[in-house]
Amino acid sequence: MHGEPEVVDPIAELITNYNELNPAAVEELYEEPSPLEFMRFVTRNTPFVVRGAAADWEATRKWNVGFIKDSLRGETVNVAVTPQGNADSPTRHNDGTLVFAKPWEEQQPIDKFLDYVIAQERAALAKPAGEVRYAQTQNDNLRHEYATLFKDVQRDVPFARIALGAASGPDAINLWIGNSRSVTALHRDNYENLYVQVAGRKRFVLLPPHCQPCVNEQLLPPADYVRSSSSSSMTQTTTADRYPSLLGLELVKPEEAEEAVPFPTWDPDLPDQNSTAYSGLAEPLRVTLEPGDMLYLPCMWYHKVSQSCSAEGICVAVNYWYDMDFRGPLYPLSMFIRSVNSQKRCGRQNPGHGI
Amino acid sequence: MHGEPEVVDPIAELITNYNELNPAAVEELYEEPSPLEFMRFVTRNTPFVVRGAAADWEATRKWNVGFIKDSLRGETVNVAVTPQGNADSPTRHNDGTLVFAKPWEEQQPIDKFLDYVIAQERAALAKPAGEVRYAQTQNDNLRHEYATLFKDVQRDVPFARIALGAASGPDAINLWIGNSRSVTALHRDNYENLYVQVAGRKRFVLLPPHCQPCVNEQLLPPADYVRSSSSSSMTQTTTADRYPSLLGLELVKPEEAEEAVPFPTWDPDLPDQNSTAYSGLAEPLRVTLEPGDMLYLPCMWYHKVSQSCSAEGICVAVNYWYDMDFRGPLYPLSMFIRSVNSQKRCGRQNPGHGI
Ligand SMILES: O=C(O)CCC(=O)C(=O)O
Ligand SMILES: O=C(O)CCC(=O)C(=O)O
Repeated sequence: MHGEPEVVDPIAELITNYNELNPAAVEELYEEPSPLEFMRFVTRNTPFVVRGAAADWEATRKWNVGFIKDSLRGETVNVAVTPQGNADSPTRHNDGTLVFAKPWEEQQPIDKFLDYVIAQERAALAKPAGEVRYAQTQNDNLRHEYATLFKDVQRDVPFARIALGAASGPDAINLWIGNSRSVTALHRDNYENLYVQVAGRKRFVLLPPHCQPCVNEQLLPPADYVRSSSSSSMTQTTTADRYPSLLGLELVKPEEAEEAVPFPTWDPDLPDQNSTAYSGLAEPLRVTLEPGDMLYLPCMWYHKVSQSCSAEGICVAVNYWYDMDFRGPLYPLSMFIRSVNSQKRCGRQNPGHGI
Repeated sequence: MHGEPEVVDPIAELITNYNELNPAAVEELYEEPSPLEFMRFVTRNTPFVVRGAAADWEATRKWNVGFIKDSLRGETVNVAVTPQGNADSPTRHNDGTLVFAKPWEEQQPIDKFLDYVIAQERAALAKPAGEVRYAQTQNDNLRHEYATLFKDVQRDVPFARIALGAASGPDAINLWIGNSRSVTALHRDNYENLYVQVAGRKRFVLLPPHCQPCVNEQLLPPADYVRSSSSSSMTQTTTADRYPSLLGLELVKPEEAEEAVPFPTWDPDLPDQNSTAYSGLAEPLRVTLEPGDMLYLPCMWYHKVSQSCSAEGICVAVNYWYDMDFRGPLYPLSMFIRSVNSQKRCGRQNPGHGI
């Protein structure tokens, strides 16, 4: 009350105000919302989970290893290969710099891919664990690469299509198949996301868009995992219990420097590492999806995704991406927070008090 | 491209980004939206007008001077009295300071009040014009003070009640009766507002919430217009063509200083006066309501309201205030903009480039 007036840090105040006004947990529904009820969540830009929403989808009931192999017999699928399950992740390069590591992508016969994923999961405690494989192309793969499986899921999420006025349906429908070694690093997408768990479990850690100052975005130059041809996975994995050597994967910076992308480097599960002055104010929401659960992950929310497997040793999910609306306040205000925060980090403004 | 990197001003960038992504005019509908369609506007925090939405309400068809006098015969109503039509406006006090001027409020017989408003409107060009009277209590007056008129309007705006989940209906329903001498100064409310024009016209000038840095908010100490008892309006306006002297109204600062309120001092219709470095970036939306039109004025939008009269010489409107949702990003982000802007104004940050 006396002496120097307290200098309020606008970013700290923003995060604190939001926390006070919003629930500290992901709301759980037990039936799908109506389009209008859904739209209220869109307005609030707030996630929810519908327990059992997809419990009776064919996919949830039928997709086991045998069924997937049968459905895609003779086909190859695009597989993201990394040494640590770190596709699209901030990764330390040999030269000491932090890069945005993109996976090595290769086509693998579906049965070989699945056998590998399962064998690795079963031998999870054995060392060396071997490279990590994740079918995770986010290019509408369920309507293309995996088209024979598509009939077992909804073509669409009607409450979302109707609410968002997305007459032509989702922009992309993606299938994800992997094991517990793959972790999707904290990032955000400019999509409204309906995420459906089919087999195994996924654990989401979520942060709202205004937590940009908490996630320690860095401009990371991209680098690619490259498999040297002398150690091709195809020769090394003719049996599922023989893991290819990690030596085959090398993290290579492109010859011509590609544009660096701003990417979070803070991991809410390791809150003391790479934190910013604001990370401690974030109150991440955590939710685990069981088979048949559906998550609404609102546009621009940061999410980190870890997984555990079904008894068979795989984790399978499907997600629907609907275009977000760039009109209205959310998008420009999110860019505003980034600008304010980056000016602060550049020291153009005094750093405020107390944190 | 060369030399010093351009320093981007986050506030300027915010306003510009928003303008680029959003329509430059108020969307016009010709029938009421469904609750879901309405909710899309709420999500975007974007106004629209429904032309003719209330064209067949009893109010729009029946409320003329005679009808209102008959309905309220023998009753008195609360009237806001100001010298210039400046109720709740930034006003220069005699001592040179800018204050937030609150009107003198008094009970007047409904017929006397209407006769005065009309006579003044008819003699609009005559001087001196006399004090300005506006029935504008924003305390749910249509369900209390003016209860006998309430049956002629909808009890509710169903698409809004359903969309917003406001089972118990609007928080307030307000009646506004005045003439062209009253102007409601630019301000904002924490309500979702459905505004219905009944007689005469209203002209709205609108700015989205993030334009806070454009409106030159100042902490204004409140002051009250007080009528000295020796010049009571009740004695001076027994006939409608005899205007009370302005001398009767004095702008008085309260003995114990009341808390100053942050209030816009920029008027988008006089853009060169009291402007800030950002005012020129604002792109105000303007819309005129004709009798029977309904405006959705989203929560936290700045609005300035001017009016013109029906042939009889009055302007009558009704509005429905629904509680806004303080959850979600809009409210805390709007407070954030104010904080960033006020730190900037206090010089704690360099003022940026170019504007
Ligand atoms: O399932 C995953 O590993 C990541 C999902 C994801 O990032 C998304 O759906 O946007
Ligand atoms: O009609 C007027 O004069 C002002 C209306 C207004 O400010 C409101 O409805 O919030």
